[in-house]
Amino acid sequence: MKLERGQKLLFIGDSITDCDRNKQDGEGLFGALGRGYVAQVDALLQAVYPELGIRVVNMGTSGNTVRDLKARWQEDVTDKKPDVLSIMIGTNDVWRQYDTPFITDWHVYIEEYEQTLRELVAQAKPVARSGIVLMTPFFLESNEQDAMRRTMDEYGAVVRRIADETGCLFVDTQAAFNKVLAHLYSATLAWDRVHPTAAGHMVLARAFLQAMDFDWTK
Amino acid sequence: MKLERGQKLLFIGDSITDCDRNKQDGEGLFGALGRGYVAQVDALLQAVYPELGIRVVNMGTSGNTVRDLKARWQEDVTDKKPDVLSIMIGTNDVWRQYDTPFITDWHVYIEEYEQTLRELVAQAKPVARSGIVLMTPFFLESNEQDAMRRTMDEYGAVVRRIADETGCLFVDTQAAFNKVLAHLYSATLAWDRVHPTAAGHMVLARAFLQAMDFDWTK
Amino acid sequence: MKLERGQKLLFIGDSITDCDRNKQDGEGLFGALGRGYVAQVDALLQAVYPELGIRVVNMGTSGNTVRDLKARWQEDVTDKKPDVLSIMIGTNDVWRQYDTPFITDWHVYIEEYEQTLRELVAQAKPVARSGIVLMTPFFLESNEQDAMRRTMDEYGAVVRRIADETGCLFVDTQAAFNKVLAHLYSATLAWDRVHPTAAGHMVLARAFLQAMDFDWTK
Amino acid sequence: MKLERGQKLLFIGDSITDCDRNKQDGEGLFGALGRGYVAQVDALLQAVYPELGIRVVNMGTSGNTVRDLKARWQEDVTDKKPDVLSIMIGTNDVWRQYDTPFITDWHVYIEEYEQTLRELVAQAKPVARSGIVLMTPFFLESNEQDAMRRTMDEYGAVVRRIADETGCLFVDTQAAFNKVLAHLYSATLAWDRVHPTAAGHMVLARAFLQAMDFDWTK
Amino acid sequence: MKLERGQKLLFIGDSITDCDRNKQDGEGLFGALGRGYVAQVDALLQAVYPELGIRVVNMGTSGNTVRDLKARWQEDVTDKKPDVLSIMIGTNDVWRQYDTPFITDWHVYIEEYEQTLRELVAQAKPVARSGIVLMTPFFLESNEQDAMRRTMDEYGAVVRRIADETGCLFVDTQAAFNKVLAHLYSATLAWDRVHPTAAGHMVLARAFLQAMDFDWTK
Amino acid sequence: MKLERGQKLLFIGDSITDCDRNKQDGEGLFGALGRGYVAQVDALLQAVYPELGIRVVNMGTSGNTVRDLKARWQEDVTDKKPDVLSIMIGTNDVWRQYDTPFITDWHVYIEEYEQTLRELVAQAKPVARSGIVLMTPFFLESNEQDAMRRTMDEYGAVVRRIADETGCLFVDTQAAFNKVLAHLYSATLAWDRVHPTAAGHMVLARAFLQAMDFDWTK
Amino acid sequence: MKLERGQKLLFIGDSITDCDRNKQDGEGLFGALGRGYVAQVDALLQAVYPELGIRVVNMGTSGNTVRDLKARWQEDVTDKKPDVLSIMIGTNDVWRQYDTPFITDWHVYIEEYEQTLRELVAQAKPVARSGIVLMTPFFLESNEQDAMRRTMDEYGAVVRRIADETGCLFVDTQAAFNKVLAHLYSATLAWDRVHPTAAGHMVLARAFLQAMDFDWTK
Amino acid sequence: MKLERGQKLLFIGDSITDCDRNKQDGEGLFGALGRGYVAQVDALLQAVYPELGIRVVNMGTSGNTVRDLKARWQEDVTDKKPDVLSIMIGTNDVWRQYDTPFITDWHVYIEEYEQTLRELVAQAKPVARSGIVLMTPFFLESNEQDAMRRTMDEYGAVVRRIADETGCLFVDTQAAFNKVLAHLYSATLAWDRVHPTAAGHMVLARAFLQAMDFDWTK
Repeated sequence: MKLERGQKLLFIGDSITDCDRNKQDGEGLFGALGRGYVAQVDALLQAVYPELGIRVVNMGTSGNTVRDLKARWQEDVTDKKPDVLSIMIGTNDVWRQYDTPFITDWHVYIEEYEQTLRELVAQAKPVARSGIVLMTPFFLESNEQDAMRRTMDEYGAVVRRIADETGCLFVDTQAAFNKVLAHLYSATLAWDRVHPTAAGHMVLARAFLQAMDFDWTK
Repeated sequence: MKLERGQKLLFIGDSITDCDRNKQDGEGLFGALGRGYVAQVDALLQAVYPELGIRVVNMGTSGNTVRDLKARWQEDVTDKKPDVLSIMIGTNDVWRQYDTPFITDWHVYIEEYEQTLRELVAQAKPVARSGIVLMTPFFLESNEQDAMRRTMDEYGAVVRRIADETGCLFVDTQAAFNKVLAHLYSATLAWDRVHPTAAGHMVLARAFLQAMDFDWTK
Repeated sequence: MKLERGQKLLFIGDSITDCDRNKQDGEGLFGALGRGYVAQVDALLQAVYPELGIRVVNMGTSGNTVRDLKARWQEDVTDKKPDVLSIMIGTNDVWRQYDTPFITDWHVYIEEYEQTLRELVAQAKPVARSGIVLMTPFFLESNEQDAMRRTMDEYGAVVRRIADETGCLFVDTQAAFNKVLAHLYSATLAWDRVHPTAAGHMVLARAFLQAMDFDWTK
Repeated sequence: MKLERGQKLLFIGDSITDCDRNKQDGEGLFGALGRGYVAQVDALLQAVYPELGIRVVNMGTSGNTVRDLKARWQEDVTDKKPDVLSIMIGTNDVWRQYDTPFITDWHVYIEEYEQTLRELVAQAKPVARSGIVLMTPFFLESNEQDAMRRTMDEYGAVVRRIADETGCLFVDTQAAFNKVLAHLYSATLAWDRVHPTAAGHMVLARAFLQAMDFDWTK
Repeated sequence: MKLERGQKLLFIGDSITDCDRNKQDGEGLFGALGRGYVAQVDALLQAVYPELGIRVVNMGTSGNTVRDLKARWQEDVTDKKPDVLSIMIGTNDVWRQYDTPFITDWHVYIEEYEQTLRELVAQAKPVARSGIVLMTPFFLESNEQDAMRRTMDEYGAVVRRIADETGCLFVDTQAAFNKVLAHLYSATLAWDRVHPTAAGHMVLARAFLQAMDFDWTK
Repeated sequence: MKLERGQKLLFIGDSITDCDRNKQDGEGLFGALGRGYVAQVDALLQAVYPELGIRVVNMGTSGNTVRDLKARWQEDVTDKKPDVLSIMIGTNDVWRQYDTPFITDWHVYIEEYEQTLRELVAQAKPVARSGIVLMTPFFLESNEQDAMRRTMDEYGAVVRRIADETGCLFVDTQAAFNKVLAHLYSATLAWDRVHPTAAGHMVLARAFLQAMDFDWTK
Repeated sequence: MKLERGQKLLFIGDSITDCDRNKQDGEGLFGALGRGYVAQVDALLQAVYPELGIRVVNMGTSGNTVRDLKARWQEDVTDKKPDVLSIMIGTNDVWRQYDTPFITDWHVYIEEYEQTLRELVAQAKPVARSGIVLMTPFFLESNEQDAMRRTMDEYGAVVRRIADETGCLFVDTQAAFNKVLAHLYSATLAWDRVHPTAAGHMVLARAFLQAMDFDWTK
Repeated sequence: MKLERGQKLLFIGDSITDCDRNKQDGEGLFGALGRGYVAQVDALLQAVYPELGIRVVNMGTSGNTVRDLKARWQEDVTDKKPDVLSIMIGTNDVWRQYDTPFITDWHVYIEEYEQTLRELVAQAKPVARSGIVLMTPFFLESNEQDAMRRTMDEYGAVVRRIADETGCLFVDTQAAFNKVLAHLYSATLAWDRVHPTAAGHMVLARAFLQAMDFDWTK
């Protein structure tokens, strides 16, 4: 995918995307993009490619699963007519199965996850002309045998499959984190293994931008 | 200068460095490094060079002039034994001459600025074995004839001269901003032309890291 | 225009007019008029012309453009039946083009500005029997070649043209500020070059009152 | 007394002077001068005489009597070396006799008031080279037979006598208010007949400035 | 009027009656009756006549004029079926004429006051079987020639006339305060001459209870 | 004991006396006397005997036992030179034995209670020339066999004995409450059977004032 | 009744059950179950029987009487389809008769209590397949002759009767507390004899779990 | 160890022990023991063994390592003369090595940990006559190969060794948690794998009490 002058780049997802963004507009000054990877991507694009005038919009909402995205897809994605759409969802779909295992109404199992994500991609395709980026959910746990990490990897595999089949740009965030986890214990990047520190968010921002052929030295 | 395993990298300066840092330690988790360029440098180092284990410390304090740095130099710099020391000071030294012109006690004129900064560099030299980085103060105003911009440029020239004469690494932040200001009006980067947005801080972080031979694609 | 006993004087505009006013009524005791030029005009009128019993109403709303004024014109202006109406709008219409250049939906370009302002004046004419005052927007930047200052001047020229053509009283706020900017750097009057200090507001209050033939020594 | 380039003008008094000023410095940006007559005097001086660069300092402290001024005279007045000093004190000296009549320790009777004020003026004389302004305390009650008004008038007479005998500039604030009270009921200017609205403060600011030969139309 | 076992005693009025009462019910524990004369009446009745089980309800609302009472009369008075109803209104009807003289929409002049109060009494008569108490508004100013005191006295005269003509119990609160004002300056009882201290409220509570033949020594 | 012109009446005790009083002075306007029986006594004295000018001071402190009173007796009682001193202490001395039975360090048993209270009375005698009032502690429990009520009654008996032997005026608060408890269940007067409602405080205020020959109908 | 794998256990009641629970869902992490006996039951079940995966839901609401439960029974109980339902209600039904005796609208007398509770049990029977637990209300007063304790015991007898007749599991909370009250004065367990400390809540949790054949040593 | 009448039981440790306890005393009503396992132990002891009157004191402090305990051992442990002392420390000693690996000053390595803990036990021995309980630190991670879990286990082994050698009662909290982790994923018990939910705290409370031969069915 190519960064082009005047593109509108919309990110949607859960609390990792949200990260305390301005809830009304999802864009503007004064930290309106939150403090996470979306804000970092915007900062890097403005700092390195000021001439492109890329417009970044953050539509993340804390606690969301793919089921919640579906409920607000029309208003928060299609109506906003992004040129590029980036989706990172699944953390809560999986997490609720592990942190509140008895409250099954809150779980989004893998079949519903896959089917819903496919629907959302299909609906966004005609709008996001410059392309869709699918980022995997991740879990900051280096033990691949860990139960929740294993489930998260399965959801990540679903994302990869949908990306492959629908021609979306695929970003493997788990792989990006794994390189760092080889050197740093997970607690350095996130106390709860889910919500990253600024460093963790930078791993996400860099993975996204590298997929977009962003050139730091330009 | 070369990034090396286990280095302790200490930043000192005013509100631009401070940026809501943890006041007790200036390091640690939970946003202890603030939200500005120091936090971004740390995030980029951890994300790209996790194997180096660089320790970043933020000793910026809002409202400081070089006169204030002098008063806390022993405790906040020398005693902390940084391997690399980065200094960016001068904004308030100049600004007070323009925003509260009648309160002359608050002004730090260029002679005092130069002499004090020289002293501080001299005292830090024996401690910061890996080197000292001198970053210029800046003003987010593209009109070079603007009175405050002109004064700020003069202070920047002092910084360059000291860097040259003492063998410090020089970072011309005004030059880095000028490239962006060629495309974006200054209000996009800072409402008050002083305190940058996240994008403005990224310009600083990138300028610093480029001087350190940081490699994004590594 | 002549100050007359029992007049109702209504000010409408953006955050410069609003300045933390009481949002329900826009008048009353306990700082209901805010802390800006409207409150100062009221204070000066009560202090110097207590026998006239001028009633001042503040209908400014932060962030407003002329497009927002249009949406609340009936309720906030016509229904309130002012004898004298003062309008100062345009700051945000211009500013958004410079501080959030990529969010074009927020920009109000000069054609829409002129047409809307004309409409609003036309609608208010039959109500405000004692007259309408048109105050230009301003930018506290002394460099006339500055891009945003230049645009603001163009909007100011629109205001002057409408005033001339419709017989409104014209107040050139930029000109009033320029006299002060000849002696004081803009940061003394406003850190962000837009929201004035008490001194900056007094420049506005004085410009307004001089146009109304207010006599300080009376 | 004549306004001259570069003068430092220090105001001292009680809550009417204080009016929510910055407690550390009593000067600077961001409403550091409070919201009362001191801030208005500063605003008018900067707006009308920007070329003079008058430096205004507010050393008022809520609840103070002349006894409290004595305790901080060295630190808050003499050490600050003002060119012009303005004193308005006495409200609480009188008020406590009327609102908490049984707590006699809080009352400052007229003999102590006169003697203390004389001492303070004597001590300030050598410092405030350009002159001292003595403003009377006042009570926003139009009935001259009212007990508290009568007492306040007696304290005002003391101020006048000291001004006459020591060559200070005398400002009769009660007289200035009386002109307004002829048209407006006292509740319009102050609910408690002591703490003025913005309009009431403007009466004070204007009385002060007229004594200083301030020219609004300049 | 006689205190009888099981009576429901409802007080309605403005901020003097309200005095920070529980807004939903106007009765209950934990200060639900506010901190003014209504709470004191309840405390005195419970302490001295616990065997009567009088139920006290506070329906006062800050800022109310008789016009506001009319708007909520059905819901807050008639529907609540009090045995005894006590009305004290008029303070704001008069005060607004003196503290915001130019905002004439807020004034309730004497004709409207009298007519509305008559209507309300007429509507309450069939409900409040044990009787209605009419308390005058008051002004804590001992000078009878004071403009606002004079107007307040006229409104008090209206209350007396209505009480006489409709057989309501009349409580002259101004007369009760006058006895105290003979010894204490008004500021001791209320800084703004309207909102009483606890002592001032006790004057009201005592005046009310004396009219009810309350016996302290019982 | 006789109320006399100009007396200073000081109350000391625990949270029942304190009741959110102003901690610095214990007197003044704006609820400085708290919201309990002390404030009610003051309100009744001012309302009924304004000509006497009785000065009421509240030195109650929440959580205090007689041991705590001893520690601050010099500063808070003797140094303040009251004419009349009223002491009500013992609630916490007893309560801690029942609510935190294992934390024995917090208990003040009856021997220490008696001895300390005697000492304090002896020290205050020469100061409080008009007399000392000793009020019993109380427990709002009507069952005399209740363990805590029984203990409280024993402490009350100590108070009576000391009053008899030292010629202090004795106020039996438990007896005063018992009359009300005959009609009202204790929860109506205090949820925790200790901290009274306004009605409960009025029982205390009335018991105190009746001992002082206060005449409500005067 | 037997604890079984995957059961949903719903508690309903008043403030003792509520205890600061999450109001939206009544379940989840981060203290969503409040801090009372419901949270303790959940903690004990998870700690000792983690393999059962019992899902605990807290639907208590502060201030509720049985009349309030009726109004929300459909939404908060039946619709939620619990396997086991536990009801503890009646505290406020009784308490209001004693703490606000004059506000009779707030009282729920024993006939209404019995009839309503029967209705609710009948409606819940077909839903709560594994059974219903009826817990008595209680009063932390050891004197059985105390008026409120006696009434509470009568309401408890109603609960026992309904449990017997409808085959619900009966938990006599008053009996459980009585064993503790034999050793500890009631104030140790609850200052107001109603809202228990953590220890008091543990008495409730243990009484409930013992009825469920919970085995601590398992 | 045997629970005996009147024992004073003091817990010391880090945030897991602290859990929002009252910082001054560490005991008393109103949640003074915090909300963690200490409060649960106290609740269970009071509910089941009210006749013993065990006094529980919480001296935990958030963020503490064994190094911090040493600094306050005299004041917070020895001076308080507990009969039984329970120590659980080590979480932060280990955690800092993993979450802030570069800030080595914050790490307490195993040699220092062992030596300091030994010293503290030795100092406490003569005071805590009824015995000392040593609880291991724990990590809520079921993967024994996880780096931080492995380190925590090593510290736990140190605790066991010291307990064995000094005759302290040993509580293996990790083992207690492991039984639960066999059924529940760690996120159910603690989002950050360190700070337990109420259920996790109950695992600790139960492990402690079982070591004390606590009998739930008594």
